[in-house]
Amino acid sequence: MGEVKHLVVAKFKEGVAVEETLQAMAQLVSTMDMVKSFEWGAEMLGEEMLRQGFTHVFIMTFNNGEDLASYLNHPSHTDFIGTFQAALENALVFDFPSVVIKPPA
Amino acid sequence: MGEVKHLVVAKFKEGVAVEETLQAMAQLVSTMDMVKSFEWGAEMLGEEMLRQGFTHVFIMTFNNGEDLASYLNHPSHTDFIGTFQAALENALVFDFPSVVIKPPA
Repeated sequence: MGEVKHLVVAKFKEGVAVEETLQAMAQLVSTMDMVKSFEWGAEMLGEEMLRQGFTHVFIMTFNNGEDLASYLNHPSHTDFIGTFQAALENALVFDFPSVVIKPPA
Repeated sequence: MGEVKHLVVAKFKEGVAVEETLQAMAQLVSTMDMVKSFEWGAEMLGEEMLRQGFTHVFIMTFNNGEDLASYLNHPSHTDFIGTFQAALENALVFDFPSVVIKPPA
């Protein structure tokens, strides 16, 4: 099995300081060597029906399932989860082994 | 603005031939030069509550929003969407400019 991805699709609560949460997440990841790469984004097309109200996506990549597990179970991550969940109205979490059909050039 | 990602989180209907749909999607993407990269995955941890019933994730990457739009509006894509939607019980679609916090090594 190759790379494993940790996907979080989130809807922030109204009035929450999204930027602060994003900065805290970036800081967390910077201290976690087992996180191979990390990107995020905010919905751009605004098709409310298709995105089901979600506003942000976070994607982390790990070399394998063991690295993902060590991240999920790390005290810094579990501490962060409390703050993160308090800022969210809804979240979808999806972990999957990445099957690459068309690799980046 | 840099790369743009097209994320689809899907739940297939019971009894649907998932492999055939995946093959049709791989074939579609292979003919679409504007799709820079494509990967997919099936949920591995089985935490039903966190994944909200979704079973598969598809992530396509484009160089920019224009390439994404040309893919979404391409007749081969709109044809495929009909078949794809018929196989799905639920789908979440999320388009976003990728903000890379930690680039792949």
